Amino acid sequence: MEKVLAAIESGREGFISELKDLLRIPSVSSDPAHAGDVRVAAEWVRKHLADMGLEAEIHETPGHPLVFAQKCDAPGKPTILFYGHFDVQPVEPLDEWTSPPFEPVERDGNIVGRGTADDKGQAFTHVKAVEAWLKGAGCLPVNVKILLEGEEEIGSPNLPAWLAEHRDLAAADVVVISDTSQFGPGLPSVCTGLRGIAAFEIHVETSSTDLHSGSFGGAVPNAIDVLTRIVSGLHTPDGGVAVAGFYDDVKAPSDEEMASWKALPFSEKQFLQSAGAQTLGGEPDRHTLERIWARPTLEIVGIGGGFQGPGHKGIVPAKAWAKCSMRLVPGMVPAKVIEAVKRHIEAASPASVKVKVEGGHGTPPVSIPTDSRWVAASVAALEKGFGAKPVFIREGGSISIVTRFVEDYGMPCLLLGFGLPDDHIHGPNEKFSLSDFMAGIRTSAYLMGELGREV
Amino acid sequence: MEKVLAAIESGREGFISELKDLLRIPSVSSDPAHAGDVRVAAEWVRKHLADMGLEAEIHETPGHPLVFAQKCDAPGKPTILFYGHFDVQPVEPLDEWTSPPFEPVERDGNIVGRGTADDKGQAFTHVKAVEAWLKGAGCLPVNVKILLEGEEEIGSPNLPAWLAEHRDLAAADVVVISDTSQFGPGLPSVCTGLRGIAAFEIHVETSSTDLHSGSFGGAVPNAIDVLTRIVSGLHTPDGGVAVAGFYDDVKAPSDEEMASWKALPFSEKQFLQSAGAQTLGGEPDRHTLERIWARPTLEIVGIGGGFQGPGHKGIVPAKAWAKCSMRLVPGMVPAKVIEAVKRHIEAASPASVKVKVEGGHGTPPVSIPTDSRWVAASVAALEKGFGAKPVFIREGGSISIVTRFVEDYGMPCLLLGFGLPDDHIHGPNEKFSLSDFMAGIRTSAYLMGELGREV
Repeated sequence: MEKVLAAIESGREGFISELKDLLRIPSVSSDPAHAGDVRVAAEWVRKHLADMGLEAEIHETPGHPLVFAQKCDAPGKPTILFYGHFDVQPVEPLDEWTSPPFEPVERDGNIVGRGTADDKGQAFTHVKAVEAWLKGAGCLPVNVKILLEGEEEIGSPNLPAWLAEHRDLAAADVVVISDTSQFGPGLPSVCTGLRGIAAFEIHVETSSTDLHSGSFGGAVPNAIDVLTRIVSGLHTPDGGVAVAGFYDDVKAPSDEEMASWKALPFSEKQFLQSAGAQTLGGEPDRHTLERIWARPTLEIVGIGGGFQGPGHKGIVPAKAWAKCSMRLVPGMVPAKVIEAVKRHIEAASPASVKVKVEGGHGTPPVSIPTDSRWVAASVAALEKGFGAKPVFIREGGSISIVTRFVEDYGMPCLLLGFGLPDDHIHGPNEKFSLSDFMAGIRTSAYLMGELGREV
Repeated sequence: MEKVLAAIESGREGFISELKDLLRIPSVSSDPAHAGDVRVAAEWVRKHLADMGLEAEIHETPGHPLVFAQKCDAPGKPTILFYGHFDVQPVEPLDEWTSPPFEPVERDGNIVGRGTADDKGQAFTHVKAVEAWLKGAGCLPVNVKILLEGEEEIGSPNLPAWLAEHRDLAAADVVVISDTSQFGPGLPSVCTGLRGIAAFEIHVETSSTDLHSGSFGGAVPNAIDVLTRIVSGLHTPDGGVAVAGFYDDVKAPSDEEMASWKALPFSEKQFLQSAGAQTLGGEPDRHTLERIWARPTLEIVGIGGGFQGPGHKGIVPAKAWAKCSMRLVPGMVPAKVIEAVKRHIEAASPASVKVKVEGGHGTPPVSIPTDSRWVAASVAALEKGFGAKPVFIREGGSISIVTRFVEDYGMPCLLLGFGLPDDHIHGPNEKFSLSDFMAGIRTSAYLMGELGREV
C-alpha cells in the first residue's frame, strides 16, 4: 500500500495533465453536432486504459459508443465494476464562463472546465487508482472492470440493452460510482439515495405564422401568453407542484434518516451562497435537505418563443415552447407522473389552441441500503483517503443506470462522491478541487486494498 | 393625364424590376449588423430619385440616414410631402419563409419578400407616380417632396429632431403616407386613426448562474417560473389587460364611427383564416374591428431563458426575459402607461428576486379628421386608381412620425393604404399584390392631378 500511495503522490502532475487532455474533448452527448467528439473521447479513454495494461474495447451502441475495460487476474478476490461517463452537459450560456469550457485551467486549487467534476474528473480518480496499484504494487488486489459510457447526460438510453447483452462481461460483486458529491469540504460522503428524473416539453401554437401586432394584436390568442399561463399553473402560489396526484406516491424518509440529516452541518446561508441566490424557493415548511433529497420537484429548464433577436418587433407570436424536468423520489414512477402532467396541461389548455406535450426520458429514483460489507469498506477507505469520517447523505440528482444495476441485476452500488456541492456541474464554470481529486484517487486505491484483504 | 396613365401602364415591368433591386437590400434597422445595409438602401433610393430628375440628398442622423428629395417648380400649386421608409423588420423565423426574404419573387400575382408591402413597395408607388408624371406630362402638377427614412421600424427615433431642424425644407400642405392597408381586396381605404405603441422588456434573475436541478431543484427559485407568473399575470383570465389603470384614458369611438365599422364587410372567419388561427382572443364582448382599431393591447412578443439548445439539460435557470409591446389608442399617453406597467410588475415580483423592467420606445396614437379637402381629393383619386369607392377605416398599427406631422407641425396627413390585411407584414412570407401596386401608382398620379387642378 505504501508503494501505491507513493505512486499516487508522485503521479500528481501527470494525472492532471492527462485529465486536461480528456477535458479538452467537447463530448456533449445531447447535441448531435458533437457526436464525433463523444467518439473521440471514447477512443481516448480506450487507448488510455489499454496503455495502462487493461484489456480495453470500444463497444458500439445505437447511440454513442461506450468503453469497457478489465483486468481480472486476482482469483478468489471480489470483482469491482467502476462505472462513470465521459460525456458532458452542454455549455450554454457560453458568455458566463470565465474561461473557455473546453480549455481546462487550474485556478485557486481547482481545475475549471466542463466535465471536471461531472464526470470525467471523478471517473478518472478510479482509473488513476488502478494505475497506481499496477505501478506501485505490480498487480491489482481485486478483479477490476471499468465501464465508461458516453450517454449518461442524456439518460443512458442504450446502456440497459448493452448490460442485458453483456451480463457476464459486466458481472461484478459491487459497482463503484463517483458521480455524486461530498456533503461539503472535508465531509466525504456515502450516498444512499438518488432522485429520479422525467423530462417533457410543452409546445404551443396559436396561429400558422407570427402576426403583425398592429393588425391582429388584441383580437387573436398569443402563443407566449397561452404558454406562460400553462407554465405558471404548474406550481401553486406557495411553491408546490400543482399537478393532481404528483405527491401521491412519495415515500417519506424515516424519522431516523430525517434526524441524521438535521444533524448535518448544513447552512442555509452557505447553500444560498453556493446557489448565488437571495432566497430559498420550492415547497414551504420543509428542511432544505429534505426538499432536495426526498421531495419531488418540477423545474422549467428552458423557455422560448416569438422574437429572440436584438431590438423590438411588433408581432403576435405564433409559437412558444418550454422544456421541463422533474426530479422524482423513492415511490414515484416516471411514466405515471408524466401521465399526470399531461392530464394537467390538457385541462389547462384553452380550446382551439394547439398544445402538445412530449414526454422525454425517465429514470426511476433509487435507494441504497447502508448495512452491507461494501458500504463498510467504502467508509473505511473514505476515512483514510480524505482523513475524515464520512457521512451518509442522499443526492438530489439522478444517475439512471444505478437503478438498473440495483433493480435489474441485484448488483450493490457504492456512490462515493468526491466533488463539492458548489462545483457548478451542468452550469458555467464547472470545477473540481485538485486536492479532492487526489483524495479520491487515494480513496479508490484504499477501497481496492480493503476489498482485496477480505475473503 | 392620359399620357401619365400610359406611362404607368408601359412602365410596369421596369417598375417591378427596380422594386426588386431595392427589396434585395436587407435593410433591417433594428439589427446593428445590418446598419451598412440600411445605408446601401438609402444610397440606392437617393440615386434613383436623382436619376428621375429630383434634387435628392442623403441626410445623416445620429442613427440611420434618410433621403430627402424634391421637385418644386409648380408655383401656386400645393406642395405634397410623400413620406415612407426603406428600412424593414427582422426576418426571423427564417425557416418559415418559403423563399428567401431578400430574394423577391413573383408568385400568384404577388411579389413576395421582406419589405414588399411594408414599406418599400408601397413607398415606391409614389416614386413611380412622380416618374410617370415627368415622363408622360413632362412636369409635375404639384410641388413634390419625398422623405424616405431608415428608422421607421425602430420608432423613428431621429426623425423628429431632423424635422425640427429642417422645418422649412420639409414644409408641405399635406403629407401622403402609404404604410397602412386596404380594408380588403377591392376596398381601397382612407385611414383615420392609428394605434400608438410602447415597448418594454422584463428581466428576471434568481441566481448568479444556472444551477444543477439535482443539487438545487426544489429549494431555490426558478427564473422562468418567476417570469411566467409575472407575464401570465399581465392579463386577466378573460383576455383583458390586468394592469391597474390601463384602460382609464381610452377614448371610445363615436357611435357613428362604430356603426360605420359594423357596416363594413368584415368576416371573422376570413380574419381567422388570414391569421391562420383557430379562435379569436383578447377582450371579450367587443366587435373585432373595435378590438384592433380602438382598444389597447399588451402583447408578449418574445420570451427566452434557461436552456435553448437541442435535447435536455437538468438545470434550474438563473435568468429569463420577455419582450412586450403595447398598442395604445387615442387618449392614452405612452409614458403614463409604461409607468403603470412598471408598478404592476413591481407589485407582482417576489421579494429577493431581481426583476427589472426596461421601457423602450413609445409612440402616441393618432386621429385624422375626415372633413378636409385633402381627404376629399384622396377619395376621388382612390376611386379612379382602384375603380372602387373607398371606405373610412382605422389601422391597428403605429406610424410614430404621423403624430409629429399632425401634432407638432399641424400638417394634415393622408394615410392611403394599398396593401392587404393578409400581406404578412412583420412576419414570414410578406407579400404585396402587383395589381394593387399598379393601382397605387395610378392613385398617387390621380391624387397629384386632383390637387394640381384645385387652386
